[in-house]
Amino acid sequence: MKARVHITLKNGVLDPQGKAIQHALGSLGFDGVDDVRQGKYIELDLSTTDKAAAEANVEEMCKKLLANMVIENYSIEIE
Amino acid sequence: MKARVHITLKNGVLDPQGKAIQHALGSLGFDGVDDVRQGKYIELDLSTTDKAAAEANVEEMCKKLLANMVIENYSIEIE
Repeated sequence: MKARVHITLKNGVLDPQGKAIQHALGSLGFDGVDDVRQGKYIELDLSTTDKAAAEANVEEMCKKLLANMVIENYSIEIE
Repeated sequence: MKARVHITLKNGVLDPQGKAIQHALGSLGFDGVDDVRQGKYIELDLSTTDKAAAEANVEEMCKKLLANMVIENYSIEIE
């Protein structure tokens, strides 16, 4: 069973990495880029076949390790 | 118009960051995690309203800046 986790900075939290990308795109001649936000994308291969258990498990992983809950949001897709 | 870009390591490319996460999850007591791969997730706010042009533009950005085509794949969603 595969879990896909997106970890993004909360709104209002400064994203220097995103700003760096935005400026770099500008200097490469890409116009019309109003904002860039960079997040993390994590793919987990889980040995369980129980979708609900997998989702609960991955949520726990996000809270304990993957995401910094003070400044980051996470979203989980299980398939 | 919003573009979401996923940048992932190609199959076969070593992912030390993913391995580190996998080991950390193991030491926290999360069993049954067979593999972890970490990628990047980039959200772009584009001022254009032409979906086809936006997609072509973002593809160009991936090739020129966002992804390292030697070791990384990218996928683009426009909405």
